[in-house]
Amino acid sequence: MPIDSLNQLLALEKIHQLKYAYVRCLDQKRWADMAELFTEDATAAYSAGKYSYTGRDAIIEFLSTNMSRDGFHSSHRMHHPEVEFVSETEATGVWAMEDHNVDTDFDFVLMGAGFYEDRYVQVAGKWLIAHTGYRRTFETIGPLSKGGIAVTASWWSTDGQSTLEVQ
Amino acid sequence: MPIDSLNQLLALEKIHQLKYAYVRCLDQKRWADMAELFTEDATAAYSAGKYSYTGRDAIIEFLSTNMSRDGFHSSHRMHHPEVEFVSETEATGVWAMEDHNVDTDFDFVLMGAGFYEDRYVQVAGKWLIAHTGYRRTFETIGPLSKGGIAVTASWWSTDGQSTLEVQ
Amino acid sequence: MPIDSLNQLLALEKIHQLKYAYVRCLDQKRWADMAELFTEDATAAYSAGKYSYTGRDAIIEFLSTNMSRDGFHSSHRMHHPEVEFVSETEATGVWAMEDHNVDTDFDFVLMGAGFYEDRYVQVAGKWLIAHTGYRRTFETIGPLSKGGIAVTASWWSTDGQSTLEVQ
Repeated sequence: MPIDSLNQLLALEKIHQLKYAYVRCLDQKRWADMAELFTEDATAAYSAGKYSYTGRDAIIEFLSTNMSRDGFHSSHRMHHPEVEFVSETEATGVWAMEDHNVDTDFDFVLMGAGFYEDRYVQVAGKWLIAHTGYRRTFETIGPLSKGGIAVTASWWSTDGQSTLEVQ
Repeated sequence: MPIDSLNQLLALEKIHQLKYAYVRCLDQKRWADMAELFTEDATAAYSAGKYSYTGRDAIIEFLSTNMSRDGFHSSHRMHHPEVEFVSETEATGVWAMEDHNVDTDFDFVLMGAGFYEDRYVQVAGKWLIAHTGYRRTFETIGPLSKGGIAVTASWWSTDGQSTLEVQ
Repeated sequence: MPIDSLNQLLALEKIHQLKYAYVRCLDQKRWADMAELFTEDATAAYSAGKYSYTGRDAIIEFLSTNMSRDGFHSSHRMHHPEVEFVSETEATGVWAMEDHNVDTDFDFVLMGAGFYEDRYVQVAGKWLIAHTGYRRTFETIGPLSKGGIAVTASWWSTDGQSTLEVQ
């Protein structure tokens, strides 16, 4: 369906904000809030299907198990939404993603890029994620402190403030 | 207020472009243009409040004092706008941010991520920033030349051209 | 022309998706698909004009010649669209860009930032790129394996999956 109506533009804005809320919950470790964004039977296929899950609970369990440590600082960014409507209540979305992760427990920096392919459905007036998954363009892992890189701010250990001094 | 009208979508576009102009002025060091984007009594709380200012003039003074050197190359990126309307002329916005800064004077690379929480008001038909501020998820600082990293283009010293040669 | 109508918002969404398709084709090396996004007489001025081309074919030839190797992994990201309409069928766009490129053949990481200035035209109901070009804020090149950085996923050589193991 071509995007040619006000209702579709309004739905598009809701779908964009849905995805943005998902990433905010991911990087701020808000697992309970994140669960509200999925359908109960949602599916996920992360890392080109290497990590595949069926059901909202299994998805949240996977993410919260692997990303809850305060020493794991993640910045996931979603770019370039190409959303198409299948019907008034169903849409697909392709997004470019990048992640930049700084792990002070295991002393590494991970950076990568890829593309998401999602499916969204509208249930009781609210847009939800029915499927999400990505395939990586690339991923690199490198040294943190051994590379001479110092962590000067953390949401969790410095209350989000930089410890560097400027004028 | 739910986003459910054409007028709100038009306002949303203006608010997005306001934020984008702010970041463009920041990274291109256009301080006079940037001043046009704030209300006179705007407030700022950068770095989780560590750098807090009251009044447009104080905000511009802080930014221009710290970021005007040609050797300080910054790339600030604003992602994932979750804008909500408080009224027809007032809105709030949450944004994910990332910054990547290359300082050729002090020979370092600074990279970071965080979340902005802004407030916007419409004055005489124009949307302006009434409050802005961010809290960092993380920030890292690392070596530039000592890390084997060469700067091969600069807006200021190479006229924006890469000095690398491709085919 | 101020953006003040539903038709303009619909055109804006199409222009955004046009740019996003361009970048997706770039990073996924889809040159034939990319050619569909330009007018036949499109012009390009990459790297502040250092690499300038006239005609869709010359642009695609330049990009495909330089970016087709599987060992060249690129992530180009377009941010902060400030699109303005010149007429109902012509628009300009300023975008912030960042690129992060990992080259496993020549063993380097290139990262950079800059600003695009584009022109778009609507032809037979479809928006196309009539001109594109960017000027860099900065560009850096650094070591990959010599910097202790390992590539752990590739669209081409690991089928988009990470080779790292998580729980």
